[in-house]
Amino acid sequence: MKGISEKVYLELAAPTEEDSRSDQQRILDGLKEAGFPAAFAPAVLRRLYPLCEQAGWKLTASLAWDGAVWQVVELEDGDTRQRHYGLAVDLGSTTVVTRLIHCGTGQCLGEVSRYNGQIAYGTDILTRIFACKDQPQVREQIRQATVDTIRENLRELEEKTGVAGSDCIQMTVAGNATMIHFLLGLDAFCVFSTPYAVHVDRPGFLPGAQLGIPVKGYVFCFPCRSNYLGGDIVSGTLATGFYRREGICAFFDIGTNGELVLGNRDFLLCGAGAAGPALEGGSVKTGMRAVEGAVDRVGWQNGDLQVHVLGEGAARGICGSGIVDLLAVLFLHGWMDLKGRLNPGKSPRIQKREDSWAVEYAPGLFFDQEDIEEFVKTKAAAYTMVEYVLRESGISLEELETFYVAGAFGKHVDKESAIAIGLYPDLDRDRLVSAGNASLEGASQLLLDRSLLEDLDGILERMIYIQFGAVEDFLHIMIAAQAIPHTDLDRFPTVKKRLEEIRAEEAAGTPSGFSDPVPGPLLSGL
Amino acid sequence: MKGISEKVYLELAAPTEEDSRSDQQRILDGLKEAGFPAAFAPAVLRRLYPLCEQAGWKLTASLAWDGAVWQVVELEDGDTRQRHYGLAVDLGSTTVVTRLIHCGTGQCLGEVSRYNGQIAYGTDILTRIFACKDQPQVREQIRQATVDTIRENLRELEEKTGVAGSDCIQMTVAGNATMIHFLLGLDAFCVFSTPYAVHVDRPGFLPGAQLGIPVKGYVFCFPCRSNYLGGDIVSGTLATGFYRREGICAFFDIGTNGELVLGNRDFLLCGAGAAGPALEGGSVKTGMRAVEGAVDRVGWQNGDLQVHVLGEGAARGICGSGIVDLLAVLFLHGWMDLKGRLNPGKSPRIQKREDSWAVEYAPGLFFDQEDIEEFVKTKAAAYTMVEYVLRESGISLEELETFYVAGAFGKHVDKESAIAIGLYPDLDRDRLVSAGNASLEGASQLLLDRSLLEDLDGILERMIYIQFGAVEDFLHIMIAAQAIPHTDLDRFPTVKKRLEEIRAEEAAGTPSGFSDPVPGPLLSGL
Repeated sequence: MKGISEKVYLELAAPTEEDSRSDQQRILDGLKEAGFPAAFAPAVLRRLYPLCEQAGWKLTASLAWDGAVWQVVELEDGDTRQRHYGLAVDLGSTTVVTRLIHCGTGQCLGEVSRYNGQIAYGTDILTRIFACKDQPQVREQIRQATVDTIRENLRELEEKTGVAGSDCIQMTVAGNATMIHFLLGLDAFCVFSTPYAVHVDRPGFLPGAQLGIPVKGYVFCFPCRSNYLGGDIVSGTLATGFYRREGICAFFDIGTNGELVLGNRDFLLCGAGAAGPALEGGSVKTGMRAVEGAVDRVGWQNGDLQVHVLGEGAARGICGSGIVDLLAVLFLHGWMDLKGRLNPGKSPRIQKREDSWAVEYAPGLFFDQEDIEEFVKTKAAAYTMVEYVLRESGISLEELETFYVAGAFGKHVDKESAIAIGLYPDLDRDRLVSAGNASLEGASQLLLDRSLLEDLDGILERMIYIQFGAVEDFLHIMIAAQAIPHTDLDRFPTVKKRLEEIRAEEAAGTPSGFSDPVPGPLLSGL
Repeated sequence: MKGISEKVYLELAAPTEEDSRSDQQRILDGLKEAGFPAAFAPAVLRRLYPLCEQAGWKLTASLAWDGAVWQVVELEDGDTRQRHYGLAVDLGSTTVVTRLIHCGTGQCLGEVSRYNGQIAYGTDILTRIFACKDQPQVREQIRQATVDTIRENLRELEEKTGVAGSDCIQMTVAGNATMIHFLLGLDAFCVFSTPYAVHVDRPGFLPGAQLGIPVKGYVFCFPCRSNYLGGDIVSGTLATGFYRREGICAFFDIGTNGELVLGNRDFLLCGAGAAGPALEGGSVKTGMRAVEGAVDRVGWQNGDLQVHVLGEGAARGICGSGIVDLLAVLFLHGWMDLKGRLNPGKSPRIQKREDSWAVEYAPGLFFDQEDIEEFVKTKAAAYTMVEYVLRESGISLEELETFYVAGAFGKHVDKESAIAIGLYPDLDRDRLVSAGNASLEGASQLLLDRSLLEDLDGILERMIYIQFGAVEDFLHIMIAAQAIPHTDLDRFPTVKKRLEEIRAEEAAGTPSGFSDPVPGPLLSGL
């Protein structure tokens, strides 16, 4: 492992009158000999005495890379190389995930997550940004809430593993531009306002102590490419590694915002845009997060909807993966047409609620026409990004080696359902790969491999960013994508075939079962 | 001025949708163009907004060299290059002198000094060292007292000039090894105990905030060559500049300890040793610091002693420069022989006090045989350093281009008197030069000229340190030097000549006046 921290064990000769080099110099000479020219952080100078003597000059130095040189940030008695830890953080606007990594072996020792404490200042990012705009004291509170969330994760990790944050040398943080601005105590209004020039895009290595993070060394925040293309995406690009391969891949991260990176080792074309909260269950009346009581899967059995509820109890609402399934089933079985209109004749579940038709997907829980429209607009925005970037680059779907879908969406949403409603493009299922928490993955990799710092520079240099807002026919393309799966059904040949099969089965009176392969257990949804 | 800080004025284009670089990148690009690739300190990132907009992108960046890269440590609205300040500190064990320097013009804007607050923990260094040995809380108190002394100097400078410490970018500190250990909160017992390996000898650039010093950037502590050859001497060597000249010079700093550097651009031989407190008026019964009431000059008029008292009032004691004069006069006029024994027949001023002869140099104030012995031992130790290093290097007195005497001693002690008693070697008076506060001077120069950082490396590399303790015949040489001026009077030809003249005058009945040229006004002594 050649990461951004090192633990170097030294067995040094004790000072004599003939060799009365200073303790500092003796250690630096030892480190230099081991291949690590370094400097001393002031706090560590105070550890030299009485440690060096007590340890009989058998010491382990903890080195943290500060972006320019190695800094000695800790000295310990004896050989402590097996206690070499680092932290990787995925700083999401909703959830903050923290991973404790053994930097000697690369092993993940623990991973915890919790809601971002910023939520107290607004569930969506814009509310938070407005809350602290020109309110330095609120900005400071939001900064503190961010740091506190990370620190709570560290405490939980310590309870689980016995390793405290202060036992770790470095921390890497991947987050979007707003999250990083908040972590650093900066105003983030710039992220969402013209001309979209953020305050800081390459924070680099910042001393943990100055950020309130109890690591010995530095907090490395992933650089962002532009306002909407943050360090989380850059980290994800790093993690999936297609930026150094020949085959062209797409990396798609979809949530409240959608971000797409398309390319290979020669080029990286990217874009980002608001998708809307609908994909995550927000702005849907009975939408909820993927917690107990959420419908996270919807299938089809015996001519009717079949739902799965997280926790196996009564349904209280529906989460993102459930919505995608629900819409797919409604569409494939003709309960909803390609314009998203419910077909009341198809089932007694479709009922008139106030002025609008709605489907009762679980006892007393309805998904109505407005919910559908909201969701369709959102999926259209997401899909349009993909289509536009492909078109701009002159790359066809067939040429894509892999289409990575990042995050919880990629992990929990059923591929077939997502394709059926036109959220994902219709491509071979084995080329449609969940990248998992790629942001966290990239942060973890960087801890362990400092050569990736150069890769990061290369990625940022190559990334060409398309401002969708400035694209003339973007709206036009998006409107075409507001059908299910798309105005042009030929773009979704497998969906077209499926529809034909279902129609044929229905005509033959043999109702189709819900046969889509479900990746992984049905226990957790989005 | 190409110092260790820079202020760079930037007129940048405001962000547009076409050029939406981050504020951070915009400034770093501007700095790079101006020749200063730099990094941002986290605290300054928080200043970007709303400053950049408010300033219409006309900004001044303060850059501090951190030993590896330039750090942006401040951003200001408009062109503030004319407010570019730095601080130089001579961190003495008795006195701490601080100079405020305009780093644009090199002008000294103010200089203040005060007693080192460490004195509360012992007037001599050893007492302080023992006070905090293995007493971390006392060590912390001494560290705080050191920092407080510097901060009080900064407050006084602010009152005088309107420029606060926090308006300054960098601070340079020259002090001996113990002083630097105390400033950094380190145990300093190592300085005086075998094997004389100090904890830290190259502190380098440490963030001011981490030391409790309110500069924007860093505190650079001069490196020390060895336990007894501290940053003050290294700084003095830098200031006098003989290390880069062809002519061979000696740099002699004398106080409680004596340090000597001899050499030129090719070699630097150095040594250090305890001289004893006698030279500064300590360990002499009526000795005192050079304050009001101290006899600071002693001359000869009408066959008798003639004293000058600081403040022109009644004498309360005698300071270093007065003692050197007194002994010179006593010796030259036969009141004391070359072994330092008072000659009672010479004057009614020489009286029996308890068991010992003593001279009443001022009403009711006596300098006795024990005081003389103490002082002679001390001056012998100092002289022996010079003789030994000259002998070791094979350099004769005649070959010395300049013999620099640093510090208050060099400034206030009369050359003729110092030669007469054998404290300084007997060489041409125009080659015997007071170097003033060379330690402070070197610290000031470094603020203004970063190329001296390389010179420092060169100086340290070339310095060959002689451990006098390990020299076999050191004691032997020293005993020879315990006569006045020396056992071998031929080493002091001008003193020999002077004695002959005085004897001749006395024989002729024409008493000699005190005719030694006194450098500078008679107002301040040592």
